[in-house]
Amino acid sequence: MSTLRVTVWNEGRHEKKNPAVQKVYPQGMHTVIAQALQAQGLTVGTATLDEPEHGLTEAVLNQTDVLIWWGHLAHGEVQDEIVNRVHARVLDGMGLVVLHSGHFSKIFQKLMGTTCNLKWREANEKERIWVVDPGHPVAEGIGEYFEIEHEEMYGEHFDIPAPDSLVFVSWFAGGDVFRSGCAYHRGRGKIFYFRPGHETYPTYYQPEVQRVILNAVRWVGQPSGAKVTFGHRPQPLEPLSTT
Amino acid sequence: MSTLRVTVWNEGRHEKKNPAVQKVYPQGMHTVIAQALQAQGLTVGTATLDEPEHGLTEAVLNQTDVLIWWGHLAHGEVQDEIVNRVHARVLDGMGLVVLHSGHFSKIFQKLMGTTCNLKWREANEKERIWVVDPGHPVAEGIGEYFEIEHEEMYGEHFDIPAPDSLVFVSWFAGGDVFRSGCAYHRGRGKIFYFRPGHETYPTYYQPEVQRVILNAVRWVGQPSGAKVTFGHRPQPLEPLSTT
Amino acid sequence: MSTLRVTVWNEGRHEKKNPAVQKVYPQGMHTVIAQALQAQGLTVGTATLDEPEHGLTEAVLNQTDVLIWWGHLAHGEVQDEIVNRVHARVLDGMGLVVLHSGHFSKIFQKLMGTTCNLKWREANEKERIWVVDPGHPVAEGIGEYFEIEHEEMYGEHFDIPAPDSLVFVSWFAGGDVFRSGCAYHRGRGKIFYFRPGHETYPTYYQPEVQRVILNAVRWVGQPSGAKVTFGHRPQPLEPLSTT
Amino acid sequence: MSTLRVTVWNEGRHEKKNPAVQKVYPQGMHTVIAQALQAQGLTVGTATLDEPEHGLTEAVLNQTDVLIWWGHLAHGEVQDEIVNRVHARVLDGMGLVVLHSGHFSKIFQKLMGTTCNLKWREANEKERIWVVDPGHPVAEGIGEYFEIEHEEMYGEHFDIPAPDSLVFVSWFAGGDVFRSGCAYHRGRGKIFYFRPGHETYPTYYQPEVQRVILNAVRWVGQPSGAKVTFGHRPQPLEPLSTT
Repeated sequence: MSTLRVTVWNEGRHEKKNPAVQKVYPQGMHTVIAQALQAQGLTVGTATLDEPEHGLTEAVLNQTDVLIWWGHLAHGEVQDEIVNRVHARVLDGMGLVVLHSGHFSKIFQKLMGTTCNLKWREANEKERIWVVDPGHPVAEGIGEYFEIEHEEMYGEHFDIPAPDSLVFVSWFAGGDVFRSGCAYHRGRGKIFYFRPGHETYPTYYQPEVQRVILNAVRWVGQPSGAKVTFGHRPQPLEPLSTT
Repeated sequence: MSTLRVTVWNEGRHEKKNPAVQKVYPQGMHTVIAQALQAQGLTVGTATLDEPEHGLTEAVLNQTDVLIWWGHLAHGEVQDEIVNRVHARVLDGMGLVVLHSGHFSKIFQKLMGTTCNLKWREANEKERIWVVDPGHPVAEGIGEYFEIEHEEMYGEHFDIPAPDSLVFVSWFAGGDVFRSGCAYHRGRGKIFYFRPGHETYPTYYQPEVQRVILNAVRWVGQPSGAKVTFGHRPQPLEPLSTT
Repeated sequence: MSTLRVTVWNEGRHEKKNPAVQKVYPQGMHTVIAQALQAQGLTVGTATLDEPEHGLTEAVLNQTDVLIWWGHLAHGEVQDEIVNRVHARVLDGMGLVVLHSGHFSKIFQKLMGTTCNLKWREANEKERIWVVDPGHPVAEGIGEYFEIEHEEMYGEHFDIPAPDSLVFVSWFAGGDVFRSGCAYHRGRGKIFYFRPGHETYPTYYQPEVQRVILNAVRWVGQPSGAKVTFGHRPQPLEPLSTT
Repeated sequence: MSTLRVTVWNEGRHEKKNPAVQKVYPQGMHTVIAQALQAQGLTVGTATLDEPEHGLTEAVLNQTDVLIWWGHLAHGEVQDEIVNRVHARVLDGMGLVVLHSGHFSKIFQKLMGTTCNLKWREANEKERIWVVDPGHPVAEGIGEYFEIEHEEMYGEHFDIPAPDSLVFVSWFAGGDVFRSGCAYHRGRGKIFYFRPGHETYPTYYQPEVQRVILNAVRWVGQPSGAKVTFGHRPQPLEPLSTT
């Protein structure tokens, strides 16, 4: 198996505007995520909103096996043309890992078909992430639950299609639950949504979180079936009765 | 339980242009479908593409429990504003039954998040529709399979999300198979896709087909849970530790 | 639609042995559940472990559209012959609602194929039950969550097959989550598992709990498809090529 | 990633009794399957019904990552103790690939919870296996469909729980369809059912069939999450209110 080629996409605006975020992620969240994956031997590049074509040119996407997506402030600035390009690549087999506030990105909404809306609260509260599908490869190596001491709360109802596999459910100290790890097949591609990662917390430095992202990259990066075809096929595969 | 209010939407163009279709459906496919449902005691209206707002005003949709959708030639002429209106109503609990070439309608694509593409062939071939989920209410009363003597073929791969319940699989004489009955939950709404109904065949007069549509209307028209809420909720439901 | 015929099965041993349970349920939990359903116009009978054939004779089951199951202390005393009888009836279309400690009953384990094991704790803690599939009929009329002030905790991992629809997720004050409302299709039958109902709490008197049980009975009691057939069928439906 | 250790289990009775089968599989079907996997670098052993403990001792199972199962004539002779041992290993993370008439094996029935019954016909008819989930790794490298020129027919209704992922659907010349490739998560284990392989045909020599079995072995052999725990846990993870 050749090395997976990953592109970590980050909106990158919080890091420019907000000193609190700069302090936690001086080179951006994408850099921390990318380094964690590189340390595991994957081939990793990064791309951000303010690059030409948001850094997601045809050339980049064609050499990407797995795309990771983090966005929040500027979902509306992502050009529809790029969204459509990513969408087509996912349906053609590119894996996609959507993180945290990426739930409201155009690409995730377009793939899900729903609003992807949810509840949220910033109260420094504890999140405990429980494994509910221990047979799923994304749950490998993290124990039956792990905790993030301080996170933003995301709560149900989360307006998504029922996942093909629900891997994690979060418990929040303030009384909410959330489907935190959701696996989907769409076209020839695979998608994993993973909840944690508010920009003001050091969540992406936490080993368990890095492990889940690595697992998710490997899962969505698995091989897909042969290219399927569509459209008019006038010739039957079997002879039709002439009666 | 009060009577279900159904709106049958039909593009209605084939019937205007094509004498062969006029002959089979002189008053339009929607009329045949509507009459079959009225005969079962449902409250049924119709709407077509060429009416103002395609016949799908806010007032109409707000009094519709279940919308049936048939389109083919003019998917592109359906205004995005109306598509968004229908989409919002489905997520808020209105049932949707999508028929045949409606697979390529904007509303179905938007709800599915995929291309909804497939293979097709017009060769008068036999379709045999097998029940694969006999516990599903949409399969009630039709036996373990039924046949349509002449239909257009639709073949895999059908680019949809895996259905929440797969109810029917079609066998075609020419060598293809197709997932013909697909049930989905999206938001507070329910969706059923049912394959048959090419405009040149008298498919919608066939009792088994009418029975499936009736079953599907009842299934997507079932009650939904209480209205959910979204967005910022600053107050925890439980007191947070102050440590 | 004719009236649903429900049989409420209760092990009935706690009520005989434990004064604390007698005080809460002097005529047994089954009586409270049965009365709540009768008040909604359903036809309801009861059956308990210590009756001949556990009250589940062929005659009783053949006139039962929906069976409700509560057991705990004496799962092992339920005769395999009766378990097999119930199993066959479920696969043939009878609905089944399994409550609380019924998770460990022979019938639920046999239908699930897994251990159905879980974590538990008796600490009088608060349970908050969240709706995660608001389009599901079992969630009708209860709001986006409801609370049970004092209940036994059940926690993940819950060793069940992923539900066909996951309707509820519970939050527990002590830090656990649980998939509390799980809908399944098996054969021609439908099954709903609903978590609450520890014997020492007045849970089955709570209106929201009664509403969920009523909804679940209606959902599993929906019609099923025509009887399917199995086995040797030597004659092809279509002529085979003789080449 | 270390090499997967596979055990191919075969009832092995047809090969002893039936000259027609001996001719096709002189060393047994298990040998052909094992050799195909060894050629891909996997570590492969075999086991058969007539060995002590059916060749499935604790020692063998503890060193098996993936078990393949083919049985037909003698399902009833497989000891319940061995079935329970395999069942526990699957729930603890061992992968299981069930082939063809293994649908009626005790282990598959026990894991599924249903009868696993189906229709069948021996008429030398053509089977065409369509990919319906092209994003699934088990579909890798086989094109959008492939054909088996002569096979036994298996037809719906197939009495299984809806698969977590339905990967293949078969078309049969005689008019039937079948869900031929079914993926399940159960406990920490993964299961794949693959339909083809009647004993009188050289099916297991066919490259596409060998490829699917290889893919299935790799998919069920993927890592599972950390070991989960069950049972009484008296201490809450969070402090409970004392009010």
